Amino acid sequence: MKLVRIYDATLREGSQAEGIAFSTEDRLRIAEAIDQLGVHYIEGGFPASNPKELAFFERMRDVRLEHAELVAFGTTRRRGAKAEGDAGLRLLAEAWPRSVCIVGKTWSLHLRTVLRASREENLRMIADSVRFLAGHGKQVFYDAEHFFDGYRDDPEYAKATVRTAAEAGAAVVVLCDTNGAMLPAELGAVVADVARLGVPLGIHVHNDSDCAVANSLVAVSHGVTQVQGTINGYGERCGNANLVSIIPALALKMGIPVLAPEQLEKLTETAQFVSQIVNIALSAHRPYVGRTAFAHKGGLHVAGVEATPLTFEHVDPAKVGNESRVLISELSGKSAVLHKAREMGLEVDGDDERIGRVLRRLKEREHHGYQYEAADGSFELLLRQALQPHEPFFRLESFRVIVERLETGKTSVEATIKLHVGGERIISTAEGNGPVNALDAALRQAIIRCYPHLADIELVNYRVRILDEAHGTGAVTRVLLDASDGEESWGTTGVSENIIEASWEALVDSIEYGLLRGEGLCE
Amino acid sequence: MKLVRIYDATLREGSQAEGIAFSTEDRLRIAEAIDQLGVHYIEGGFPASNPKELAFFERMRDVRLEHAELVAFGTTRRRGAKAEGDAGLRLLAEAWPRSVCIVGKTWSLHLRTVLRASREENLRMIADSVRFLAGHGKQVFYDAEHFFDGYRDDPEYAKATVRTAAEAGAAVVVLCDTNGAMLPAELGAVVADVARLGVPLGIHVHNDSDCAVANSLVAVSHGVTQVQGTINGYGERCGNANLVSIIPALALKMGIPVLAPEQLEKLTETAQFVSQIVNIALSAHRPYVGRTAFAHKGGLHVAGVEATPLTFEHVDPAKVGNESRVLISELSGKSAVLHKAREMGLEVDGDDERIGRVLRRLKEREHHGYQYEAADGSFELLLRQALQPHEPFFRLESFRVIVERLETGKTSVEATIKLHVGGERIISTAEGNGPVNALDAALRQAIIRCYPHLADIELVNYRVRILDEAHGTGAVTRVLLDASDGEESWGTTGVSENIIEASWEALVDSIEYGLLRGEGLCE
Repeated sequence: MKLVRIYDATLREGSQAEGIAFSTEDRLRIAEAIDQLGVHYIEGGFPASNPKELAFFERMRDVRLEHAELVAFGTTRRRGAKAEGDAGLRLLAEAWPRSVCIVGKTWSLHLRTVLRASREENLRMIADSVRFLAGHGKQVFYDAEHFFDGYRDDPEYAKATVRTAAEAGAAVVVLCDTNGAMLPAELGAVVADVARLGVPLGIHVHNDSDCAVANSLVAVSHGVTQVQGTINGYGERCGNANLVSIIPALALKMGIPVLAPEQLEKLTETAQFVSQIVNIALSAHRPYVGRTAFAHKGGLHVAGVEATPLTFEHVDPAKVGNESRVLISELSGKSAVLHKAREMGLEVDGDDERIGRVLRRLKEREHHGYQYEAADGSFELLLRQALQPHEPFFRLESFRVIVERLETGKTSVEATIKLHVGGERIISTAEGNGPVNALDAALRQAIIRCYPHLADIELVNYRVRILDEAHGTGAVTRVLLDASDGEESWGTTGVSENIIEASWEALVDSIEYGLLRGEGLCE
Repeated sequence: MKLVRIYDATLREGSQAEGIAFSTEDRLRIAEAIDQLGVHYIEGGFPASNPKELAFFERMRDVRLEHAELVAFGTTRRRGAKAEGDAGLRLLAEAWPRSVCIVGKTWSLHLRTVLRASREENLRMIADSVRFLAGHGKQVFYDAEHFFDGYRDDPEYAKATVRTAAEAGAAVVVLCDTNGAMLPAELGAVVADVARLGVPLGIHVHNDSDCAVANSLVAVSHGVTQVQGTINGYGERCGNANLVSIIPALALKMGIPVLAPEQLEKLTETAQFVSQIVNIALSAHRPYVGRTAFAHKGGLHVAGVEATPLTFEHVDPAKVGNESRVLISELSGKSAVLHKAREMGLEVDGDDERIGRVLRRLKEREHHGYQYEAADGSFELLLRQALQPHEPFFRLESFRVIVERLETGKTSVEATIKLHVGGERIISTAEGNGPVNALDAALRQAIIRCYPHLADIELVNYRVRILDEAHGTGAVTRVLLDASDGEESWGTTGVSENIIEASWEALVDSIEYGLLRGEGLCE
C-alpha cells in the first residue's frame, strides 16, 4: 500500500494571506485541532523570522501532540557564508523539534535577480545547509522553491538541486510550484521525470491557476510521498493547496489511507473550526465540508438520494463529517419535509394532515419571498410549530427604533423593546451602531436573566437581499442571519418591505432556535 | 491551431446554486456581459421548465448579441413516447435559437432507480430526440449526464450512448461529471478512450472534488473541443467548472486562443460584474480576478516583481484585466482618474495637484469599504467636488427616522428631515413602507419645489451588501442605489456601520447627481 504523509503548513503559509494574523493562542488552538485530525507534520513557523514565532515553539515544548510532529522552518545559509556561522541555521539546529524544513533556490532567474548567487554557489548553499542540519540529528525536508519554473528554464540544473539536497542527507525533497503557474498535465510529466532520480519527493503548490488540489493529486499519482498544503487553502495571493480537499480524495478515491476513518470524520469540524479562528466565513460551496456540499434541491434529486445516495453524491458525507441536506425550496415536496422532520427527531408519517398544512404554509411564505434553503433554523421552528408547539419564550408587546442624524453630523441609534417574560413586563432600551444591532442589544438585555444560555449565542453573519430590486427603496427585503452557540450554527430569515421588520423577524427566530437548545430559569 | 469553444451555463446552472435567483432583468444584464467577454455559446435556460425562462427567450429575440449564440436547454423525450409528441422537445424545435442542448442518461443506476427505463429504450430516447431536433434544422449539443459514473459502471454502454447521439446528428457530445466525482488522472484516461470514437466532444464538470478547472483542462488536452462552465463557478452544491479560471489557462498557458486578447482583458471586470448582480462577494483570493490574486506582501517579492514581474507572477495580470497590487502606483490610478475626468468633459492634466488629492481621497474611502465600480455617479461627484465644485443643492441640518412595531402587530415608519434650500429652512415629515423609503419621500417633498426635475428621477434598484459579514449585526454595510431619469441611469453608494446612514448617503448622491442634469428654480 502506498504511504503518503500530510504536511500542514497553515501556521506559516496561512499567515501570509491577506487578512490573517495569528496570535500565539490561535496558533496553539489550530495546532491542536490539526493534530486531532491526524496529519503527520505541522509546520510551526519560521523561528528566525520573529520572536513571536520563536515563542510559539517554546510554548509547544509542553504540548503533547498525539499524531503530528512539529516542524521548524528556515532557509539555506546566506551566500558566501558558512552553515555553522548562519544564525538562522543554528537556531534550527538547536530548536527542539526533530524535523526541520529549509527552502532553497532552483530557478536561475531568481539567482540572478533576487539572490545574486552563482549556480554553483547555490548548490553549495543547499548541500552545506542540509548537511549541517542532518549532522545535528535532524530529519531534514528540503523545499525546492520555484522548482517547476526552474525546470522549464533548465531541467538538468533543477534536477541537480534535487540530487544535491538528497545526497547531503535530505529525507524528502519537496518540489514547489511557488508561483502557482502549473497545469496538471505538465506538472505530472515533470514529477514523473524527477521521480526517476529515486529521491523521496514531496509536493507544495500554490493555487494561482485554480489547480492546486488537482496538481497535488497528480503528483501523488506520479510517486510523491509527502503533500504540503494548508487547511482551507489559506495562503498568499490565491492560497495554497487545500488539504481539506486533498485528504478525502487520497483516502476515499485513491485508496491511500492517509488518515484513519474516524479521523477523517473530523474533517468538516476541523475546517469550520480553523475558519472560525481566522474569522473568515467558510464558503457554503466548499467541496466535502461546505454547508451545501451535499445539498439537494430538485424533487427528483431528493427522491434519488433517498433511494440510493450515490445517485447524486460522489462520496458518503458522513465519512468526512458532513451531512446531506435537503434544501427546502419551491421545488421540494412532502418527501423533503418528512425527511427534515425525521432528522429533527419528530415522529410523523406521510398521511399526517399536519404535513399538508406545513406544505401550504411553506408555499405561501415562499410566495412572499421567504427562502428556507439557508435558513434551517426558521424552517425547523415553522415545522415544530405545526407538529410540536412549545410555549413562546417571551411575548413582544412593541418595539421602537429611532435613528437620528444630528446637526453635528453624529448619528445616534436607540431601540426600545416592551415585552413579557417569566411573568414580568420588561421595558428595555439600548443603543447600537445600527438599528438592528440596537434591537439585538435591547432584546438580549430584556431576557438574558431568564435565559442565561443566550450569552453563548452569537450572531455571526448578517446578509440582506433586496427582492425585486427594480422597485428601488420600496422593494421587499429578505434578511438572513447566521447564529452559533459554539457547538452548532443555524440560519434564520425574515422578509418585509421594511428592513427593520425583516431583521427583527430573523433575529427573534435566531434567538428562539438557540434557546430551544438551552434551559430557561424563569418558567 | 486547436479550436476550443466556450459554452457558458451561468444562467441555468447558476440559478441552481443556493442563494441565487435571477430576475429577467438580471438574466439580460448577465447575458450581455458574457457576450461582451466573447464566449461562443450562452445557455439561456430551460424554456419548458417555467414561464419565466420562456419569457427570457422572448426578450432575447430583440437583443443583438455580438459574439455569442444563445442556446435553449431541454431533455430527451419521455420514456415510451414519441419525440414529436413531447411538449418540451416541440418547444425547443420551435424556439428561435439555432442551437439547442439536451441532456440524457448514461448510467444504468439512474435508468433503474430514477428514470425506470431499459438500456435499449434509453438509446432510442437519445436517438429520437437528437434526430427530431436536428431534423428541425437545429445544431444539437447532447449532454451525456453522469457520463463518467456510467463509464465506470459499463464503458461499452456509456460509449454506445455517445455513438448513438452522434449518429443521430448531435454536433457535439458533452461528457458530464454530474456528481463531480472525478480526479484528473482517471478523467483524462476516460476522455482519451472516448475520443477514439472520433465524435466531437465537450466537457461539463462539477466541482465536488475541487478539481473542476483542472479536469476541464485535462479534457481539452485529450481532444475535447467544447468546454461548459459558469462565471465564477456558480452552480449547485460545490459549483460548476469556473470559466473565469479555465479561459485564461487555455489562452495564456495552453496556446489555445479562445478569446481575443482585448476580450480576455475584460475577464476581471466580467467576473466582478456578475458577482455584483448575484450579490455574492467574490473572494479576494480568486485566481486571475481576485483583488489579491496578484498582491505581493514580502519586501523581497515587491523588489522581485518590480525588477522582473515574472519572478513572482504566473501571468501578466493586465492580460486578464487585473493588476499587481504593489504596482498600484499613483500612475495607474492616475491614468484612470484622468480618463474619467476627460470623459466628464473636465479639462485637467496629469500634473494637476488636485488629481493627487482625488487619488488620496479615493484610497482612503476604498479602505473604508467604498467601491466605485458600480457607483459611477458617486465617483463622478467625488471627482467634480475636487475639480469643479458646485454650490450644494441643499444643506442638511438633521434627520430622524422612527420605526415602531405597535401592539397591534402593525408597523409604522416616519422620517423627518430638516434642511435649507433656496434660502429657506424646511421641515418635512413623510411615512414610508421602510426607513429608506420614508427618508426618500421626506427629502423629495422638501426640495421638489426648487427642483421640479426631481419628479423624473426614479430609484430603480437598491442593493445592500454586508462587508465583513462575520461581525453579525455590527458589520459594515455598503448600499448601492441605481437611479434613472428616463434618459440616463447612474449608480451611487454609501458605507456605514448603520444601514440607514449608508442608505442616506447613497440617496443624497443619487439625487444630487440627477439634479446636476436638470435646472433649479430657487437659486
